[in-house]
Amino acid sequence: MRLYDYFRSSAAYRVRIALNFKGLTAERAFVHLRRDEQRDAGYLALNPQGFVPALVADEGTVLTQSLAIIEYLEETHPHPSLFPHGAAARARVRAIALEVACDIHPLNNLRVLKYLKDTLHVSDADKDIWYKHWVHEGLAALEIQLARDPATGTFCHGNAPSLADVVLVPQLANAHRFNVDVTPFPTLLRIEAACLALPAFALAEPSLQPDAE
Amino acid sequence: MRLYDYFRSSAAYRVRIALNFKGLTAERAFVHLRRDEQRDAGYLALNPQGFVPALVADEGTVLTQSLAIIEYLEETHPHPSLFPHGAAARARVRAIALEVACDIHPLNNLRVLKYLKDTLHVSDADKDIWYKHWVHEGLAALEIQLARDPATGTFCHGNAPSLADVVLVPQLANAHRFNVDVTPFPTLLRIEAACLALPAFALAEPSLQPDAE
Repeated sequence: MRLYDYFRSSAAYRVRIALNFKGLTAERAFVHLRRDEQRDAGYLALNPQGFVPALVADEGTVLTQSLAIIEYLEETHPHPSLFPHGAAARARVRAIALEVACDIHPLNNLRVLKYLKDTLHVSDADKDIWYKHWVHEGLAALEIQLARDPATGTFCHGNAPSLADVVLVPQLANAHRFNVDVTPFPTLLRIEAACLALPAFALAEPSLQPDAE
Repeated sequence: MRLYDYFRSSAAYRVRIALNFKGLTAERAFVHLRRDEQRDAGYLALNPQGFVPALVADEGTVLTQSLAIIEYLEETHPHPSLFPHGAAARARVRAIALEVACDIHPLNNLRVLKYLKDTLHVSDADKDIWYKHWVHEGLAALEIQLARDPATGTFCHGNAPSLADVVLVPQLANAHRFNVDVTPFPTLLRIEAACLALPAFALAEPSLQPDAE
Protein backbone atom coordinates (compact mmCIF):
# COMPACT_ATOMS: atom_id res chain seq x y z
CA MET A 1 0.00 0.00 0.00
CA ARG A 2 1.04 3.57 -0.61
CA LEU A 3 -0.27 6.49 1.42
CA TYR A 4 -0.29 10.01 -0.02
CA ASP A 5 0.16 12.04 3.09
CA TYR A 6 0.89 15.47 4.54
CA PHE A 7 1.91 15.80 8.14
CA ARG A 8 -0.54 18.58 8.97
CA SER A 9 -3.55 17.15 7.17
CA SER A 10 -5.92 15.97 9.87
CA ALA A 11 -7.68 13.68 7.39
CA ALA A 12 -4.33 12.00 6.65
CA TYR A 13 -3.63 11.85 10.39
CA ARG A 14 -6.81 9.76 10.81
CA VAL A 15 -5.57 7.23 8.27
CA ARG A 16 -2.11 7.10 9.86
CA ILE A 17 -3.72 6.22 13.20
CA ALA A 18 -5.89 3.51 11.62
CA LEU A 19 -2.92 1.95 9.81
CA ASN A 20 -0.86 1.93 13.02
CA PHE A 21 -3.76 0.53 15.02
CA LYS A 22 -4.14 -2.36 12.61
CA GLY A 23 -0.39 -2.98 12.45
CA LEU A 24 -0.23 -2.12 8.76
CA THR A 25 2.57 -0.27 7.05
CA ALA A 26 2.21 1.74 3.89
CA GLU A 27 4.87 3.26 1.70
CA ARG A 28 4.61 7.03 2.15
CA ALA A 29 4.44 9.74 -0.50
CA PHE A 30 4.30 13.33 0.71
CA VAL A 31 2.15 15.98 -0.92
CA HIS A 32 3.06 19.43 0.33
CA LEU A 33 -0.24 21.26 0.68
CA ARG A 34 1.29 24.66 1.46
CA ARG A 35 3.27 24.40 -1.79
CA ASP A 36 0.07 23.40 -3.63
CA GLU A 37 1.51 20.06 -4.72
CA GLN A 38 -2.02 18.65 -4.51
CA ARG A 39 -2.81 20.73 -7.61
CA ASP A 40 -0.01 19.14 -9.68
CA ALA A 41 -1.34 17.36 -12.76
CA GLY A 42 0.21 14.08 -11.63
CA TYR A 43 -1.56 14.13 -8.30
CA LEU A 44 -4.85 15.33 -9.80
CA ALA A 45 -4.74 12.39 -12.19
CA LEU A 46 -4.59 10.16 -9.12
CA ASN A 47 -7.18 12.11 -7.12
CA PRO A 48 -9.21 14.69 -9.05
CA GLN A 49 -10.30 16.27 -5.77
CA GLY A 50 -6.69 17.27 -5.11
CA PHE A 51 -6.90 16.32 -1.43
CA VAL A 52 -4.87 14.09 0.82
CA PRO A 53 -5.02 11.38 1.92
CA ALA A 54 -5.19 8.92 -0.93
CA LEU A 55 -4.31 5.28 -0.40
CA VAL A 56 -3.21 3.08 -3.27
CA ALA A 57 -4.16 -0.46 -2.28
CA ASP A 58 -1.91 -3.39 -3.11
CA GLU A 59 -3.93 -4.28 -6.20
CA GLY A 60 -3.55 -0.71 -7.49
CA THR A 61 -6.97 0.67 -6.60
CA VAL A 62 -6.83 4.31 -5.56
CA LEU A 63 -8.90 5.00 -2.45
CA THR A 64 -9.81 8.52 -1.35
CA GLN A 65 -11.71 10.11 1.55
CA SER A 66 -10.27 9.21 4.93
CA LEU A 67 -13.45 7.67 6.37
CA ALA A 68 -13.94 5.48 3.28
CA ILE A 69 -10.29 4.42 3.51
CA ILE A 70 -10.69 3.47 7.18
CA GLU A 71 -13.86 1.47 6.48
CA TYR A 72 -11.90 -0.32 3.74
CA LEU A 73 -9.04 -1.09 6.13
CA GLU A 74 -11.60 -2.40 8.62
CA GLU A 75 -13.19 -4.68 6.00
CA THR A 76 -9.90 -5.99 4.67
CA HIS A 77 -8.08 -6.19 8.04
CA PRO A 78 -10.84 -6.66 10.61
CA HIS A 79 -8.56 -7.36 13.61
CA PRO A 80 -8.05 -5.39 15.75
CA SER A 81 -11.34 -3.71 14.98
CA LEU A 82 -12.08 0.00 15.04
CA PHE A 83 -15.81 -0.67 15.46
CA PRO A 84 -17.82 -2.01 18.41
CA HIS A 85 -20.29 -4.88 18.21
CA GLY A 86 -23.91 -4.10 17.37
CA ALA A 87 -25.46 -1.94 14.67
CA ALA A 88 -26.60 0.80 17.08
CA ALA A 89 -23.14 1.01 18.66
CA ARG A 90 -21.51 1.23 15.24
CA ALA A 91 -24.00 3.95 14.26
CA ARG A 92 -23.01 5.92 17.36
CA VAL A 93 -19.32 5.62 16.53
CA ARG A 94 -19.87 6.62 12.92
CA ALA A 95 -22.05 9.57 13.98
CA ILE A 96 -19.33 10.94 16.28
CA ALA A 97 -16.78 10.57 13.48
CA LEU A 98 -19.08 12.29 11.00
CA GLU A 99 -19.82 15.15 13.38
CA VAL A 100 -16.14 16.01 13.21
CA ALA A 101 -15.57 15.06 9.58
CA CYS A 102 -18.65 16.79 8.15
CA ASP A 103 -19.54 19.52 10.61
CA ILE A 104 -16.24 20.86 11.95
CA HIS A 105 -13.30 19.99 9.75
CA PRO A 106 -14.61 21.05 6.28
CA LEU A 107 -15.31 24.60 7.43
CA ASN A 108 -11.76 25.13 8.59
CA ASN A 109 -9.48 23.50 6.10
CA LEU A 110 -6.88 25.33 4.11
CA ARG A 111 -8.91 25.91 0.92
CA VAL A 112 -11.76 27.49 2.89
CA LEU A 113 -9.52 29.76 4.96
CA LYS A 114 -7.82 30.82 1.71
CA TYR A 115 -11.16 31.62 0.09
CA LEU A 116 -12.22 33.71 3.09
CA LYS A 117 -9.00 35.68 2.89
CA ASP A 118 -8.32 35.92 -0.83
CA THR A 119 -11.83 36.13 -2.27
CA LEU A 120 -14.00 37.54 0.52
CA HIS A 121 -11.15 39.70 1.94
CA VAL A 122 -12.02 38.68 5.47
CA SER A 123 -9.53 40.08 7.99
CA ASP A 124 -7.14 37.74 9.79
CA ALA A 125 -8.97 38.49 13.03
CA ASP A 126 -12.36 37.55 11.57
CA LYS A 127 -10.86 34.45 9.97
CA ASP A 128 -9.58 33.43 13.39
CA ILE A 129 -13.04 33.99 14.92
CA TRP A 130 -14.60 31.92 12.11
CA TYR A 131 -12.19 29.08 12.81
CA LYS A 132 -12.82 29.09 16.54
CA HIS A 133 -16.57 29.48 16.12
CA TRP A 134 -17.02 26.23 14.19
CA VAL A 135 -14.59 24.26 16.31
CA HIS A 136 -16.22 25.48 19.49
CA GLU A 137 -19.76 24.83 18.29
CA GLY A 138 -18.90 21.33 17.10
CA LEU A 139 -16.86 20.28 20.13
CA ALA A 140 -19.47 21.71 22.53
CA ALA A 141 -22.18 19.46 21.04
CA LEU A 142 -19.82 16.47 21.19
CA GLU A 143 -18.91 17.19 24.81
CA ILE A 144 -22.62 17.16 25.80
CA GLN A 145 -23.26 13.94 23.93
CA LEU A 146 -20.23 12.09 25.25
CA ALA A 147 -20.50 13.35 28.83
CA ARG A 148 -24.13 12.30 29.28
CA ASP A 149 -24.04 8.94 27.53
CA PRO A 150 -23.20 5.82 29.57
CA ALA A 151 -21.86 4.27 26.35
CA THR A 152 -18.86 6.59 26.64
CA GLY A 153 -15.98 4.92 28.46
CA THR A 154 -12.23 5.41 28.51
CA PHE A 155 -12.68 6.16 24.83
CA CYS A 156 -15.55 7.69 22.85
CA HIS A 157 -17.30 4.34 22.85
CA GLY A 158 -16.56 1.98 25.71
CA ASN A 159 -13.06 0.95 26.62
CA ALA A 160 -11.56 0.30 23.22
CA PRO A 161 -10.52 2.87 20.61
CA SER A 162 -12.82 3.20 17.63
CA LEU A 163 -13.27 5.23 14.48
CA ALA A 164 -14.72 7.98 16.67
CA ASP A 165 -11.42 8.43 18.54
CA VAL A 166 -9.45 8.18 15.31
CA VAL A 167 -11.31 11.23 14.01
CA LEU A 168 -11.57 13.15 17.29
CA VAL A 169 -7.86 13.21 18.14
CA PRO A 170 -6.70 15.00 14.95
CA GLN A 171 -9.48 17.57 15.36
CA LEU A 172 -8.34 18.29 18.91
CA ALA A 173 -4.76 18.60 17.65
CA ASN A 174 -5.98 21.31 15.27
CA ALA A 175 -7.87 23.01 18.09
CA HIS A 176 -4.69 23.13 20.17
CA ARG A 177 -2.63 24.42 17.25
CA PHE A 178 -5.06 27.29 16.64
CA ASN A 179 -5.33 28.11 20.36
CA VAL A 180 -9.00 27.24 20.70
CA ASP A 181 -10.03 27.28 24.36
CA VAL A 182 -10.70 23.61 25.04
CA THR A 183 -11.19 23.87 28.80
CA PRO A 184 -15.01 23.54 28.41
CA PHE A 185 -14.48 20.02 27.00
CA PRO A 186 -13.12 17.87 29.84
CA THR A 187 -14.59 14.64 28.48
CA LEU A 188 -12.98 15.17 25.10
CA LEU A 189 -9.62 16.01 26.71
CA ARG A 190 -9.77 12.94 28.92
CA ILE A 191 -10.42 10.75 25.88
CA GLU A 192 -7.66 12.48 23.92
CA ALA A 193 -5.16 11.72 26.71
CA ALA A 194 -6.21 8.06 26.78
CA CYS A 195 -5.73 7.85 23.01
CA LEU A 196 -2.34 9.56 22.96
CA ALA A 197 -1.10 7.10 25.56
CA LEU A 198 -1.40 4.45 22.83
CA PRO A 199 1.46 4.13 20.32
CA ALA A 200 -0.98 3.87 17.38
CA PHE A 201 -2.16 7.39 18.07
CA ALA A 202 1.06 8.90 19.41
CA LEU A 203 3.20 7.73 16.49
CA ALA A 204 0.76 9.27 14.00
CA GLU A 205 1.13 12.78 15.44
CA PRO A 206 2.03 15.42 12.85
CA SER A 207 5.29 16.45 14.49
CA LEU A 208 6.66 12.91 14.25
CA GLN A 209 6.13 12.49 10.52
CA PRO A 210 9.09 12.47 8.08
CA ASP A 211 7.76 15.54 6.24
CA ALA A 212 7.17 17.56 9.44
CA GLU A 213 8.63 21.04 9.42
CA MET B 1 -38.99 4.17 13.82
CA ARG B 2 -39.45 7.90 13.96
CA LEU B 3 -37.69 10.27 11.56
CA TYR B 4 -37.08 13.89 12.52
CA ASP B 5 -37.23 15.52 9.16
CA TYR B 6 -37.40 18.81 7.26
CA PHE B 7 -38.42 18.81 3.63
CA ARG B 8 -35.54 21.02 2.47
CA SER B 9 -32.77 19.37 4.47
CA SER B 10 -30.68 17.47 1.99
CA ALA B 11 -29.28 15.28 4.77
CA ALA B 12 -32.85 14.28 5.69
CA TYR B 13 -33.61 13.75 1.99
CA ARG B 14 -30.82 11.14 1.90
CA VAL B 15 -32.43 9.20 4.75
CA ARG B 16 -35.88 9.44 3.14
CA ILE B 17 -34.47 7.85 -0.04
CA ALA B 18 -32.75 5.07 1.91
CA LEU B 19 -35.91 4.26 3.89
CA ASN B 20 -37.98 4.15 0.68
CA PHE B 21 -35.36 2.04 -1.09
CA LYS B 22 -35.44 -0.53 1.69
CA GLY B 23 -39.23 -0.51 1.89
CA LEU B 24 -39.20 0.86 5.42
CA THR B 25 -41.65 3.36 6.85
CA ALA B 26 -40.94 5.70 9.73
CA GLU B 27 -43.30 7.91 11.65
CA ARG B 28 -42.44 11.50 10.71
CA ALA B 29 -41.80 14.48 12.98
CA PHE B 30 -41.08 17.78 11.29
CA VAL B 31 -38.51 20.24 12.58
CA HIS B 32 -38.87 23.60 10.87
CA LEU B 33 -35.30 24.81 10.30
CA ARG B 34 -36.26 28.28 9.05
CA ARG B 35 -38.21 28.78 12.28
CA ASP B 36 -35.21 27.52 14.28
CA GLU B 37 -37.18 24.64 15.81
CA GLN B 38 -33.92 22.66 15.82
CA ARG B 39 -32.76 24.99 18.63
CA ASP B 40 -35.77 24.18 20.85
CA ALA B 41 -34.72 22.63 24.16
CA GLY B 42 -36.78 19.52 23.47
CA TYR B 43 -35.07 18.84 20.18
CA LEU B 44 -31.62 19.68 21.54
CA ALA B 45 -32.18 17.14 24.31
CA LEU B 46 -32.71 14.58 21.57
CA ASN B 47 -29.86 15.77 19.33
CA PRO B 48 -27.41 18.23 20.93
CA GLN B 49 -26.12 19.14 17.47
CA GLY B 50 -29.52 20.62 16.65
CA PHE B 51 -29.51 19.18 13.14
CA VAL B 52 -31.92 17.03 11.20
CA PRO B 53 -32.22 14.20 10.46
CA ALA B 54 -32.42 12.13 13.61
CA LEU B 55 -33.88 8.66 13.58
CA VAL B 56 -35.29 7.07 16.69
CA ALA B 57 -34.93 3.33 16.20
CA ASP B 58 -37.62 0.94 17.38
CA GLU B 59 -35.73 0.14 20.59
CA GLY B 60 -35.52 3.88 21.38
CA THR B 61 -31.92 4.55 20.35
CA VAL B 62 -31.50 8.00 18.84
CA LEU B 63 -29.37 7.91 15.69
CA THR B 64 -27.91 11.06 14.15
CA GLN B 65 -25.81 11.92 11.09
CA SER B 66 -27.42 10.82 7.83
CA LEU B 67 -24.56 8.60 6.66
CA ALA B 68 -24.39 6.80 10.00
CA ILE B 69 -28.17 6.32 9.88
CA ILE B 70 -27.97 4.84 6.39
CA GLU B 71 -25.14 2.47 7.37
CA TYR B 72 -27.35 1.40 10.30
CA LEU B 73 -30.32 0.78 8.01
CA GLU B 74 -28.03 -1.25 5.74
CA GLU B 75 -26.80 -3.37 8.65
CA THR B 76 -30.25 -3.95 10.12
CA HIS B 77 -32.11 -4.30 6.79
CA PRO B 78 -29.50 -5.54 4.32
CA HIS B 79 -31.87 -6.26 1.43
CA PRO B 80 -32.10 -4.55 -0.96
CA SER B 81 -28.57 -3.33 -0.40
CA LEU B 82 -27.24 0.17 -0.94
CA PHE B 83 -23.67 -1.16 -1.23
CA PRO B 84 -21.95 -3.18 -3.94
CA HIS B 85 -19.97 -6.36 -3.35
CA GLY B 86 -16.26 -6.08 -2.58
CA ALA B 87 -14.36 -3.85 -0.17
CA ALA B 88 -12.81 -1.69 -2.91
CA ALA B 89 -16.20 -1.13 -4.54
CA ARG B 90 -17.74 -0.19 -1.21
CA ALA B 91 -14.84 2.19 -0.57
CA ARG B 92 -15.53 3.85 -3.92
CA VAL B 93 -19.22 4.27 -3.10
CA ARG B 94 -18.46 5.65 0.36
CA ALA B 95 -15.84 8.04 -1.05
CA ILE B 96 -18.32 9.50 -3.55
CA ALA B 97 -20.88 9.94 -0.76
CA LEU B 98 -18.29 11.59 1.51
CA GLU B 99 -17.13 13.93 -1.24
CA VAL B 100 -20.61 15.39 -1.22
CA ALA B 101 -21.29 15.04 2.50
CA CYS B 102 -17.94 16.44 3.71
CA ASP B 103 -16.66 18.63 0.91
CA ILE B 104 -19.72 20.29 -0.64
CA HIS B 105 -22.73 20.21 1.64
CA PRO B 106 -21.22 21.52 4.95
CA LEU B 107 -19.97 24.71 3.33
CA ASN B 108 -23.38 25.65 2.06
CA ASN B 109 -25.88 24.76 4.71
CA LEU B 110 -28.13 27.24 6.43
CA ARG B 111 -26.00 27.91 9.52
CA VAL B 112 -22.93 28.72 7.39
CA LEU B 113 -24.81 31.02 5.02
CA LYS B 114 -26.27 32.78 8.06
CA TYR B 115 -22.83 33.23 9.60
CA LEU B 116 -21.47 34.70 6.37
CA LYS B 117 -24.34 37.18 6.24
CA ASP B 118 -24.93 38.05 9.90
CA THR B 119 -21.41 37.86 11.33
CA LEU B 120 -19.06 38.51 8.42
CA HIS B 121 -21.53 40.87 6.69
CA VAL B 122 -20.88 39.27 3.33
CA SER B 123 -23.15 40.71 0.63
CA ASP B 124 -25.90 38.56 -0.87
CA ALA B 125 -24.01 38.58 -4.17
CA ASP B 126 -20.80 37.30 -2.56
CA LYS B 127 -22.76 34.72 -0.58
CA ASP B 128 -24.23 33.47 -3.83
CA ILE B 129 -20.75 33.26 -5.39
CA TRP B 130 -19.51 31.35 -2.31
CA TYR B 131 -22.37 28.87 -2.65
CA LYS B 132 -21.81 28.29 -6.33
CA HIS B 133 -18.02 28.10 -5.92
CA TRP B 134 -18.08 25.11 -3.57
CA VAL B 135 -20.83 23.30 -5.43
CA HIS B 136 -19.06 23.80 -8.72
CA GLU B 137 -15.66 22.74 -7.42
CA GLY B 138 -17.07 19.63 -5.77
CA LEU B 139 -19.28 18.53 -8.65
CA ALA B 140 -16.51 19.18 -11.19
CA ALA B 141 -14.19 16.74 -9.40
CA LEU B 142 -16.99 14.19 -9.16
CA GLU B 143 -17.82 14.54 -12.86
CA ILE B 144 -14.18 13.77 -13.80
CA GLN B 145 -14.04 10.78 -11.49
CA LEU B 146 -17.35 9.28 -12.59
CA ALA B 147 -16.94 9.99 -16.30
CA ARG B 148 -13.53 8.32 -16.59
CA ASP B 149 -14.13 5.28 -14.39
CA PRO B 150 -15.50 2.09 -16.00
CA ALA B 151 -17.02 1.22 -12.61
CA THR B 152 -19.61 3.94 -13.26
CA GLY B 153 -22.76 2.52 -14.84
CA THR B 154 -26.36 3.61 -15.02
CA PHE B 155 -25.75 4.77 -11.46
CA CYS B 156 -22.64 6.06 -9.67
CA HIS B 157 -21.48 2.50 -9.20
CA GLY B 158 -22.62 -0.06 -11.73
CA ASN B 159 -26.24 -0.62 -12.54
CA ALA B 160 -27.80 -0.55 -9.09
CA PRO B 161 -28.38 2.47 -6.86
CA SER B 162 -26.02 2.82 -3.92
CA LEU B 163 -25.23 5.16 -1.05
CA ALA B 164 -23.36 7.32 -3.60
CA ASP B 165 -26.56 8.03 -5.54
CA VAL B 166 -28.52 8.55 -2.33
CA VAL B 167 -26.17 11.42 -1.44
CA LEU B 168 -25.63 12.80 -4.94
CA VAL B 169 -29.30 13.35 -5.83
CA PRO B 170 -30.12 15.72 -2.90
CA GLN B 171 -26.97 17.72 -3.63
CA LEU B 172 -28.02 18.13 -7.25
CA ALA B 173 -31.48 19.19 -6.09
CA ASN B 174 -29.82 21.96 -4.09
CA ALA B 175 -27.70 22.94 -7.07
CA HIS B 176 -30.84 23.30 -9.19
CA ARG B 177 -32.62 25.28 -6.50
CA PHE B 178 -29.76 27.76 -6.26
CA ASN B 179 -29.39 28.02 -10.05
CA VAL B 180 -25.91 26.54 -10.23
CA ASP B 181 -24.93 25.91 -13.86
CA VAL B 182 -24.88 22.12 -14.02
CA THR B 183 -24.39 21.80 -17.78
CA PRO B 184 -20.67 20.90 -17.31
CA PHE B 185 -21.74 17.75 -15.45
CA PRO B 186 -23.49 15.47 -17.99
CA THR B 187 -22.55 12.26 -16.20
CA LEU B 188 -24.01 13.48 -12.93
CA LEU B 189 -27.20 14.64 -14.67
CA ARG B 190 -27.58 11.31 -16.46
CA ILE B 191 -27.27 9.47 -13.13
CA GLU B 192 -29.69 11.89 -11.46
CA ALA B 193 -32.31 11.19 -14.16
CA ALA B 194 -31.85 7.43 -13.71
CA CYS B 195 -32.33 7.80 -9.96
CA LEU B 196 -35.39 10.04 -10.17
CA ALA B 197 -37.06 7.48 -12.44
CA LEU B 198 -37.15 5.20 -9.38
CA PRO B 199 -39.99 5.70 -6.88
CA ALA B 200 -37.60 5.43 -3.89
CA PHE B 201 -35.87 8.62 -5.04
CA ALA B 202 -38.80 10.42 -6.61
CA LEU B 203 -41.08 10.03 -3.58
CA ALA B 204 -38.40 11.45 -1.29
CA GLU B 205 -38.21 14.77 -3.18
CA PRO B 206 -38.63 17.84 -0.98
CA SER B 207 -41.71 19.17 -2.79
CA LEU B 208 -43.63 15.96 -2.09
CA GLN B 209 -43.14 15.94 1.68
CA PRO B 210 -46.03 16.73 4.05
CA ASP B 211 -44.19 19.76 5.47
CA ALA B 212 -43.31 21.22 2.05
CA GLU B 213 -44.18 24.87 1.56
